[in-house]
Amino acid sequence: MRATIIHAPGDIRVENAPEPTITAPTDAVIRTVATCVCGSDLWSYRGVLPIAEPWAIGHEYVGVVEEVGSEVSTVRPGQFVIGSFVASDNTCPNCRAGYQTSCLHAQQVNGAQAEYVRIPIADGTLVATPEQPDEELIPSLLTLSDVMGTGWYAARAAEIRPGSTAVVVGDGAVGLSGVIAAKELGAERIIAMSRHESRQKLALEFGATDIVTERGEEGVARVKELTNGVGADSVLECVGTQESMRQGLQSARPGGNVGFVGFPHGTQIDGQELFFSHVGLRGGLAPVRSYLPDLIQRVFDGRINPGKVFDLSLPLDQAAEGYKAMDQRRAIKTLLRP
Amino acid sequence: MRATIIHAPGDIRVENAPEPTITAPTDAVIRTVATCVCGSDLWSYRGVLPIAEPWAIGHEYVGVVEEVGSEVSTVRPGQFVIGSFVASDNTCPNCRAGYQTSCLHAQQVNGAQAEYVRIPIADGTLVATPEQPDEELIPSLLTLSDVMGTGWYAARAAEIRPGSTAVVVGDGAVGLSGVIAAKELGAERIIAMSRHESRQKLALEFGATDIVTERGEEGVARVKELTNGVGADSVLECVGTQESMRQGLQSARPGGNVGFVGFPHGTQIDGQELFFSHVGLRGGLAPVRSYLPDLIQRVFDGRINPGKVFDLSLPLDQAAEGYKAMDQRRAIKTLLRP
Repeated sequence: MRATIIHAPGDIRVENAPEPTITAPTDAVIRTVATCVCGSDLWSYRGVLPIAEPWAIGHEYVGVVEEVGSEVSTVRPGQFVIGSFVASDNTCPNCRAGYQTSCLHAQQVNGAQAEYVRIPIADGTLVATPEQPDEELIPSLLTLSDVMGTGWYAARAAEIRPGSTAVVVGDGAVGLSGVIAAKELGAERIIAMSRHESRQKLALEFGATDIVTERGEEGVARVKELTNGVGADSVLECVGTQESMRQGLQSARPGGNVGFVGFPHGTQIDGQELFFSHVGLRGGLAPVRSYLPDLIQRVFDGRINPGKVFDLSLPLDQAAEGYKAMDQRRAIKTLLRP
Repeated sequence: MRATIIHAPGDIRVENAPEPTITAPTDAVIRTVATCVCGSDLWSYRGVLPIAEPWAIGHEYVGVVEEVGSEVSTVRPGQFVIGSFVASDNTCPNCRAGYQTSCLHAQQVNGAQAEYVRIPIADGTLVATPEQPDEELIPSLLTLSDVMGTGWYAARAAEIRPGSTAVVVGDGAVGLSGVIAAKELGAERIIAMSRHESRQKLALEFGATDIVTERGEEGVARVKELTNGVGADSVLECVGTQESMRQGLQSARPGGNVGFVGFPHGTQIDGQELFFSHVGLRGGLAPVRSYLPDLIQRVFDGRINPGKVFDLSLPLDQAAEGYKAMDQRRAIKTLLRP
């Protein structure tokens, strides 16, 4: 089969590789229908994360079950499935608490930018769609594997409730998904912080009510102007830098909440600053498994269309170009078709 | 009148001072019935906070209203009242959200370790008891002015719910009050981290179900043993050091919450560590005003008896000895009687 291998920073190749097989009775093998490039894949691509040896990259996927191990009982060959980027048993105390990315038996999914992918602990990880989806739903279903679920978690961690005022820091695919989540969870005012015209447009289409182009102290001042002088109820931090975290914390009102899903790059949070802010803070790898049944239904119902974050769609063999376009910010997010 | 003045680190004197007067139409003057020494008073006493010039110290108080300004309408002379250590208008957006210590017009109360004290924005700050309290209720009512309200906030910020498992880090007066709060809010298992026998005893009396004497990694391991291997639902961090914050964060389960009320001394929180913990974190100066009506009723009903945290009671004139006993850890908390 064809699989995407990262050899070194900037060196992405689609190569022939052996098809994955069932290695544990809890595994499933999926024929990938669509996969995509994640912002976090760029950490390796940009040399931020070291690459000890070439490896099969990719962790977002939708596809059709090809084969299951003898202990798999919740999905069967032929079903269309979506799974999280982290495999989880969905039965341990952390899974039952809704934090499947902290599963006591969590395993990272890799090798998804390929024609077939092996998914460990399939019963806990995969969710079948109610029926075979129409072609047009595929991109949106694919986002549920990571990016839309991550935006959803940001909104939940930020405790958005009906009537809330929300700020979304970051206009990448996760931030834009966060706008969708904020809208679905009932936020009345959704302030998207963005400087890119195409992303502003998509944010507005997804439900943003205001765009703030300022950053830093000016950005905070602008948010306060829009929020009764005190700041927002909920802030979704979808970037992961020291600056974006401060932007997030300072944009929330006392008693408000920041959900942070941007992977923190050297971020330190000052205890006194957090203390005096009265802001609640929760982050982490999104437990997207927890949201799959609900979000699949919202996609099937046509309520949400997060697939629009894909502004580039390429055959799998052109994965290298997909990475390059995202790295150069020519694309928000690249979908790959095996 | 007699008032407690701090002149320099370690130099506490009770001196003659002019009685406070109404300076704004929203002020009240209270005849102090009881006051006390706060752990935070020790920061000045120990030279951690600079003392630019001698000042009238003290911010915890109960007493009888002596005089009110022309615009005060919710309390009247002769009423027994309790107020927060931070004066608040109780009408601004932050107050209405339940965060009176972030009131847009907040003022610090000082000079309470004295026979009389002036309270600004009295309507928003003071709450009258339903009747004149019996003498035996005075110590418990006094704790509502700060320390019991602070333990309550820690428990609320840690989102204790009926059936929760809670860990209390810190066995000072706030930590012990946190045990009471955890119990009242329905925690089923309350793990007090304490190495002092007398404080362990009080913690057990207040509702703790387990005592953990270990600290650091050993302390975390012990907590996990007691909590299904994953950590506690709720952690009350009542110390404020880097070590106690880490203890708190590592003792909470993924999806759990840490409420931190120990004033952070140079504490830095690592963004990645918080990210991977999936723990929610909220701290701050407790909005004790918010809890006064409820907590007053619990004291009057005999449900809670937080006054037991006072293990030393002295006449106001012996305030210096009261500070010394707390500084030397001979006393948990000192009550002063004008």
